[in-house]
Amino acid sequence: MTVRDRVRTIVEAPWFQAAVVALILINALILGIETSPRVMAVHGDLLHGIDMVILALFVLELGLRVFAHRADFFRDPWSWFDMVIIGIALLPTSGPFSVLRVLRVLRVLRLLSVIPTLRHVVSGLFRALPGMMSILFLVMLLLYVSAVMATRLFAEVSPEYFNDLPTSLFTLFQIATADGWGTIAKDVMEHKPMAWVFFVVFVLVSTLVALNLFIAVAVEALEKDDSEQSDGGPGDGPGGRVGSDPDDGGPDPGHALILAELRSLRAEVSELRRERQEA
Amino acid sequence: MTVRDRVRTIVEAPWFQAAVVALILINALILGIETSPRVMAVHGDLLHGIDMVILALFVLELGLRVFAHRADFFRDPWSWFDMVIIGIALLPTSGPFSVLRVLRVLRVLRLLSVIPTLRHVVSGLFRALPGMMSILFLVMLLLYVSAVMATRLFAEVSPEYFNDLPTSLFTLFQIATADGWGTIAKDVMEHKPMAWVFFVVFVLVSTLVALNLFIAVAVEALEKDDSEQSDGGPGDGPGGRVGSDPDDGGPDPGHALILAELRSLRAEVSELRRERQEA
Amino acid sequence: MTVRDRVRTIVEAPWFQAAVVALILINALILGIETSPRVMAVHGDLLHGIDMVILALFVLELGLRVFAHRADFFRDPWSWFDMVIIGIALLPTSGPFSVLRVLRVLRVLRLLSVIPTLRHVVSGLFRALPGMMSILFLVMLLLYVSAVMATRLFAEVSPEYFNDLPTSLFTLFQIATADGWGTIAKDVMEHKPMAWVFFVVFVLVSTLVALNLFIAVAVEALEKDDSEQSDGGPGDGPGGRVGSDPDDGGPDPGHALILAELRSLRAEVSELRRERQEA
Amino acid sequence: MTVRDRVRTIVEAPWFQAAVVALILINALILGIETSPRVMAVHGDLLHGIDMVILALFVLELGLRVFAHRADFFRDPWSWFDMVIIGIALLPTSGPFSVLRVLRVLRVLRLLSVIPTLRHVVSGLFRALPGMMSILFLVMLLLYVSAVMATRLFAEVSPEYFNDLPTSLFTLFQIATADGWGTIAKDVMEHKPMAWVFFVVFVLVSTLVALNLFIAVAVEALEKDDSEQSDGGPGDGPGGRVGSDPDDGGPDPGHALILAELRSLRAEVSELRRERQEA
Repeated sequence: MTVRDRVRTIVEAPWFQAAVVALILINALILGIETSPRVMAVHGDLLHGIDMVILALFVLELGLRVFAHRADFFRDPWSWFDMVIIGIALLPTSGPFSVLRVLRVLRVLRLLSVIPTLRHVVSGLFRALPGMMSILFLVMLLLYVSAVMATRLFAEVSPEYFNDLPTSLFTLFQIATADGWGTIAKDVMEHKPMAWVFFVVFVLVSTLVALNLFIAVAVEALEKDDSEQSDGGPGDGPGGRVGSDPDDGGPDPGHALILAELRSLRAEVSELRRERQEA
Repeated sequence: MTVRDRVRTIVEAPWFQAAVVALILINALILGIETSPRVMAVHGDLLHGIDMVILALFVLELGLRVFAHRADFFRDPWSWFDMVIIGIALLPTSGPFSVLRVLRVLRVLRLLSVIPTLRHVVSGLFRALPGMMSILFLVMLLLYVSAVMATRLFAEVSPEYFNDLPTSLFTLFQIATADGWGTIAKDVMEHKPMAWVFFVVFVLVSTLVALNLFIAVAVEALEKDDSEQSDGGPGDGPGGRVGSDPDDGGPDPGHALILAELRSLRAEVSELRRERQEA
Repeated sequence: MTVRDRVRTIVEAPWFQAAVVALILINALILGIETSPRVMAVHGDLLHGIDMVILALFVLELGLRVFAHRADFFRDPWSWFDMVIIGIALLPTSGPFSVLRVLRVLRVLRLLSVIPTLRHVVSGLFRALPGMMSILFLVMLLLYVSAVMATRLFAEVSPEYFNDLPTSLFTLFQIATADGWGTIAKDVMEHKPMAWVFFVVFVLVSTLVALNLFIAVAVEALEKDDSEQSDGGPGDGPGGRVGSDPDDGGPDPGHALILAELRSLRAEVSELRRERQEA
Repeated sequence: MTVRDRVRTIVEAPWFQAAVVALILINALILGIETSPRVMAVHGDLLHGIDMVILALFVLELGLRVFAHRADFFRDPWSWFDMVIIGIALLPTSGPFSVLRVLRVLRVLRLLSVIPTLRHVVSGLFRALPGMMSILFLVMLLLYVSAVMATRLFAEVSPEYFNDLPTSLFTLFQIATADGWGTIAKDVMEHKPMAWVFFVVFVLVSTLVALNLFIAVAVEALEKDDSEQSDGGPGDGPGGRVGSDPDDGGPDPGHALILAELRSLRAEVSELRRERQEA
């Protein structure tokens, strides 16, 4: 057993995984406590110290995993996720990069890559994305066109909401989530009474598109589930789901039994007939 | 017939159940009336008296059920539900426990354990929970990470919404329900114009996750329904749903009929052949 | 052909139905115009006159339908719908009944009973109601219990939202629709910082229950659709949907064909054997 | 190869399509930049110039496509979409038609007709519309009736929201999207305490109808998907989906195999019997 094998045994051991989860949870707790200026004034140095130790342990863990799995490590997208998250924590955070200090909190998201169930859920979310892509692009297109129109129409009467293109984009995104659109529309309609046409059409179209986005995803989920079930459900006995598997080349097992029975019966009758003719 | 048998006959009688439901409804009415200070000033003592009598009757009912069903009583989770609810009503409510006085209202929820249909619905809700668990954990994780980030980023510019971690958690929960997030985002963006990135990403991710939570539950419900239907729907005759039951060891009843017919046919042909050979 | 037959031919004629629809639409227009005080000041008498004429025509139509269909008329729930709506229009609307004047607008809803497609949609809505009943009762129970608790807890600190039981019920209904609950919760939490527990639990539970209500209805709709399809889809040939019809007493048509074939085969073999034995 | 054939080869070439997409994207960018008064003050003439060139190119493209496809061009609804959009850009925009200047932004929507995936998504949205029609008409009917009632009831006490029929229609549309209805209802209830009946009923009914609209569309989508799958899924072998195809005239392929086997068996037995009788 080489050193590499021994390291691999360690990083794949349940206690190792549990230790990493524990470290992440402790780290999450500390990151939470660090938001309190009162606590930081007293125990700031201690907390930062623990933070550093945990970060070092994470780097060590990553190193061990690279050493153990070599090329395989870099083939797993979750490894890249871990590397990016730890890489962010190692970057300098002074001067213009101070916002990166905040992104250190993302370290807690390593729970997603470490706990298999969460990993599965997140993978599911990402698998659903391609199916949404064309509708999402449609949404963005509608948002852009509407924002250009709204800026041209309402920039003068309602600069608070439609002063320039970015402001209009934000306002229309807010309207698309049906949050406070009445107030915004009222504000505009005070000066442009016909503006209700724009707002009602926008709300209706964005609802219709959202509805279809939703249904597209749901239908895909139901289908995937359906095919998973028939491909290898645990209780999928010889009589399971007649022909629901689109990939099976022939008839279902129930039919197979009947056909076998019929064929042997036919053989018997043929035999009978042959004997009769021979007689 | 022992005393225990006689008591069991009583507590399981429909009129007994109906009486308990009636008591709960009366109690609900009284608890509602008790919220009016005007009525309480005049009839307070009377209402409290009735309240005490009904509580005593509930304790008596629980005692009878314990006596009648003995160990079985404690195996039913709904019994524990009843015991906890009545236990709360018996606790002292003076001093620091005054909030328990309010929890007495939960007594009305005993309707859930007494009326079978409601019991069924609530059991259904609880059965749906495990399927949501991993997504709910994901939601909580995202909420925590976002709250830590938001507190660090926005605590200074928008103390009303992001002063400390608990405040941020509440604010982000509110944003996740799409209630008034525009106002909150505007408040922050006044000082930090780039804050829209955070809010738009948060709204999109929480919507995506909620969508998937919803679909996961719906798919599970549809599946469960599917298997329930094939397991024992009322009109599930010998030819019902070919092979959709994942648990049946062999072919479906329709196939079974055909196979039986085939086997007896084959037996007859074999017999014919044997006779022929004997002749 | 009796007078009754002739009247029945008339009230069932397409042109008669079309005329009624036209009358309702004209009436709807007039009722809309009547909301303008400016127009009413000038043409009020004319509009009221037309209103009266149309009402008289509706009464006449109803009379003709009663005469034509006799007892059958009263068996159709839509007839009762029409009668109640026209009855409301005939009631005196002076003094305490002035609110009935507003209900006259419901006359426009007669379109629902006259146009078959709308009739079908509304019947569908009503058929969905029984399936929701137990969950709706659960919702009402939760709302009541929460309102009693909220009144007791928050009446003093937030009289605007929780002064008495009816006010609390309204506020909680509003929170359940996720409209402005953040503002309400903030208002209460100013004095009772722990109130977030109540609001977050209430929002979560009401969302969970609404989700389940939704899924229950959707599953039922999908099922009904499924069984409708297999009960009499237009292309439902002898081999359509193996056994998906839960009401058929025996095996599906495909199986029936095979069984018939098998039985005649068996009869033939038996005959063969009988002949052989006789020989 | 005629000139027409050569032109057709060009307009159907991938590079031509890509060039059109590029032109639209550049145009979208310019239209976005044109919303900034600061940029327009400096580069306004240049941007307008590019705009004109792109419009000319669009007209040229349309002309080439008309020349290439002749009558076929006018049979495709997407061609009409393109023509209307470009027609709007060619109209004079001075005086009362100044609003048309804003509609020029719709040019960006040509991406919908040019990119096949988006075309497919939008076609899907339009195909879903007929299924919604009767429910949408029901929604509009309810909105109209409610608006007439609300105007009559609340015009005096809450002119801000219910002054006349159009205002009431807008307010009720806003309430139906559950946006800020609590504030509106509170405003009315200050003077008419019983108004909660109207608002609660309206919110419940509109939610119920929206729920059913949603489910109707989802069920239709699932069905369509189902039939598409069984009509010609890629892996749809001889045993795929027993009888789920509503159009097949006879039994499913699995059954067909069994029946064929049975018939030849029966023929053999008949033969045997005939021989026996002849003997």
